[in-house]
Amino acid sequence: MSVVNEFIEANHIYAAQFQKGSLPLPPGRKVAVLACMDARLDPARILGLEEGDAHVIRNAGGRAADALRSLIISEQLLGTQTIVIIHHTDCGMLTFSDDGIHHKIKQELHADADHIAFLPFTDLEQSVRDDIAFLQGSPLIPDSIEIKGFIYDVTTGKLHTVN
Amino acid sequence: MSVVNEFIEANHIYAAQFQKGSLPLPPGRKVAVLACMDARLDPARILGLEEGDAHVIRNAGGRAADALRSLIISEQLLGTQTIVIIHHTDCGMLTFSDDGIHHKIKQELHADADHIAFLPFTDLEQSVRDDIAFLQGSPLIPDSIEIKGFIYDVTTGKLHTVN
Repeated sequence: MSVVNEFIEANHIYAAQFQKGSLPLPPGRKVAVLACMDARLDPARILGLEEGDAHVIRNAGGRAADALRSLIISEQLLGTQTIVIIHHTDCGMLTFSDDGIHHKIKQELHADADHIAFLPFTDLEQSVRDDIAFLQGSPLIPDSIEIKGFIYDVTTGKLHTVN
Repeated sequence: MSVVNEFIEANHIYAAQFQKGSLPLPPGRKVAVLACMDARLDPARILGLEEGDAHVIRNAGGRAADALRSLIISEQLLGTQTIVIIHHTDCGMLTFSDDGIHHKIKQELHADADHIAFLPFTDLEQSVRDDIAFLQGSPLIPDSIEIKGFIYDVTTGKLHTVN
């Protein structure tokens, strides 16, 4: 069975047990989680989220610059007041450079992605600090928004606070 | 207790039961899920995902243009071969316009976000078709990548295929 058909089968089971059809649109716990897309990191399980609790924004690396549009919508239109940033150990973003991926795309796709900043990093803790600083410095994120950063350890399941 | 402290408490419980510390970095099911950040939509539960299965990319609306960086990394560096796009009923992206949010930000934050396209939409099914077409038309997404689109019904828990 293809992965898409497996998803459809799994959804039949989820929908058959579904009892949360009256939740409001704004997140109940007034928080937006920004995390890496990594397959080993499930923000809902890691943080104890139920349906309706939190916006969850995810991209390669969990980078703030790439989440600004979503964070503004979350705060200005849907009332979230806290941002929780989660990067993680063994992240793919530690394994390549912009020059490297630009070159690979030319070689393999015969296409040009030089206009895209892929936002890799070389220091995991610093990447969290950089993303907190980016949001704190943005005029589009009010000072009233609380911002906290964590590193998730994919080998232990533990979150570590970044100060 | 603050939501951040609640997350840390919940993570202690998750980590105490954690037994998945040896998963590889590339997604086991070779799929990237692109979904809205909406709090009511939990891609892992909806699709039956376990830790290690799939990249999950999420942003306001589940828009493809805002996920291109992550999708390229997912495919070119980490071997995913399928993209599953999930938008949903009662989406916040149906409730505002670019002009409206640009004006609101000027009024409330005294800042200018006119350079940001917030990517709202007026037709839910068409928004999925537009995002499939965007990816199919991009030279940075190879034709070998399978792309499927769905609408998730937040009142029933069911996925509906968009053709």
